[in-house]
Amino acid sequence: MGELQKNTRFEHLLRLADTNLILGHRMSEWIGKSPILEEELALTNIGLDLIGQARALYEHAVAVSGEEDNRDADDLVFLRDAPEYKNLLLVERENGDFAHTMVRQMFYSAFAVPVWEALTRSVDSEVAGIAGRAEKESLYHLRHASEWILRMGDGTEESHQRVQDAVDALWMYTGEMFDMDEVETAAFEAGHGVDLTAVRSEWEKTVREVLTAATLDYPEDCWMLKGGRTGKHTEHLGHLLSDMQFLQRAYPGQKW
Amino acid sequence: MGELQKNTRFEHLLRLADTNLILGHRMSEWIGKSPILEEELALTNIGLDLIGQARALYEHAVAVSGEEDNRDADDLVFLRDAPEYKNLLLVERENGDFAHTMVRQMFYSAFAVPVWEALTRSVDSEVAGIAGRAEKESLYHLRHASEWILRMGDGTEESHQRVQDAVDALWMYTGEMFDMDEVETAAFEAGHGVDLTAVRSEWEKTVREVLTAATLDYPEDCWMLKGGRTGKHTEHLGHLLSDMQFLQRAYPGQKW
Repeated sequence: MGELQKNTRFEHLLRLADTNLILGHRMSEWIGKSPILEEELALTNIGLDLIGQARALYEHAVAVSGEEDNRDADDLVFLRDAPEYKNLLLVERENGDFAHTMVRQMFYSAFAVPVWEALTRSVDSEVAGIAGRAEKESLYHLRHASEWILRMGDGTEESHQRVQDAVDALWMYTGEMFDMDEVETAAFEAGHGVDLTAVRSEWEKTVREVLTAATLDYPEDCWMLKGGRTGKHTEHLGHLLSDMQFLQRAYPGQKW
Repeated sequence: MGELQKNTRFEHLLRLADTNLILGHRMSEWIGKSPILEEELALTNIGLDLIGQARALYEHAVAVSGEEDNRDADDLVFLRDAPEYKNLLLVERENGDFAHTMVRQMFYSAFAVPVWEALTRSVDSEVAGIAGRAEKESLYHLRHASEWILRMGDGTEESHQRVQDAVDALWMYTGEMFDMDEVETAAFEAGHGVDLTAVRSEWEKTVREVLTAATLDYPEDCWMLKGGRTGKHTEHLGHLLSDMQFLQRAYPGQKW
């Protein structure tokens, strides 16, 4: 188990942080628009959990990078443009209808649970600590989203169709999660990262169980889009960032 | 006919410029998404006309203001936040479906045609020049939008319903156009502005003709929202600006 290079370690933390932040922001877009009041609270809480995980990771990333330019966690969030963001493409997809949001959440949480679980054994004790709490939160997110998918899949003809449409539309963004590129491989070999090939088996098992229980079709193999982890994003991330970053961009350096 | 104070003159030009800019930007949001190719070109051209009118007005506003801070037309467009924008609320409404876009355009162009016509007699020869060209462009916009409203109103049951819904939804934003507040009154009395009470009669006549021909109901009198001309905007303007201004906000002072 070799020493992980500082910039690879930073990159690895950034990928995880960005993915959680962007999905958390998507959930925040539901505020005031949820189908029922109880769901308003649930979506907001899921968003807060995700943004909280991201914040802890950003702060740790800043600490390990020891960069001369003194960027803090807020700078990483509010002053990077789309190509510098390293989140998975799945989480930048628009909310769409409620079925889309719940399928996106289930796809991500089914991945996040085994990833956090593995990270509780990271050689980086700070990450292991973050992972312990995040795993519990992600288990709740997975259960919440799965219950809705079950209810919609096994509901009316229209709700079944909507959730199946969401599964089919988002499927092509799931393959990227398991891509062991150089950064993921180096992080794994140094005890900082996760074996995403093993995560894939677990993810497929979870997703298959949920879809089957919800009387939904498990999609056929198809071509998978990737690029998010290296900064190649869809147009949706740019629009999300221009909203999210407006205040800091328009009034740079303002303090609350 | 007294001399118009410099800041009132600037404010009067800014209102007109902002309204044209924001509606022009809304049209640009249709690029790549229009229902048919010919309409793709038409919507883009209407947007370009409106932004061209706005640009001429901003440049003139900067010249007449003679401000010490040396703001140029680009600064006015890209570096003002929502409360500094003085456009009519009508034009910041979201595009919605094609019926919404066309009704919004018809409502505005039926106002713009008599306004520009009156401004061809402005004591400000620069404005009179801009108005001469803008009047012709606005006549085309009015005709184009009216033809679509006729086609949709007199079309299928669904198209009829959609255009009627758009008329009803946008109606409450039309009253503001004719509000003779202090700035409009001062500009009119000094020969720079327009008698909006007279414009109202002409607007109602035009709109009634279009709606009647399209077998649509002319809405009942209702409570009218105002505030755009004094910087009190709906949430939609903020989202529009965060998209429109992203580049200048993220990369301040960059040159092409």
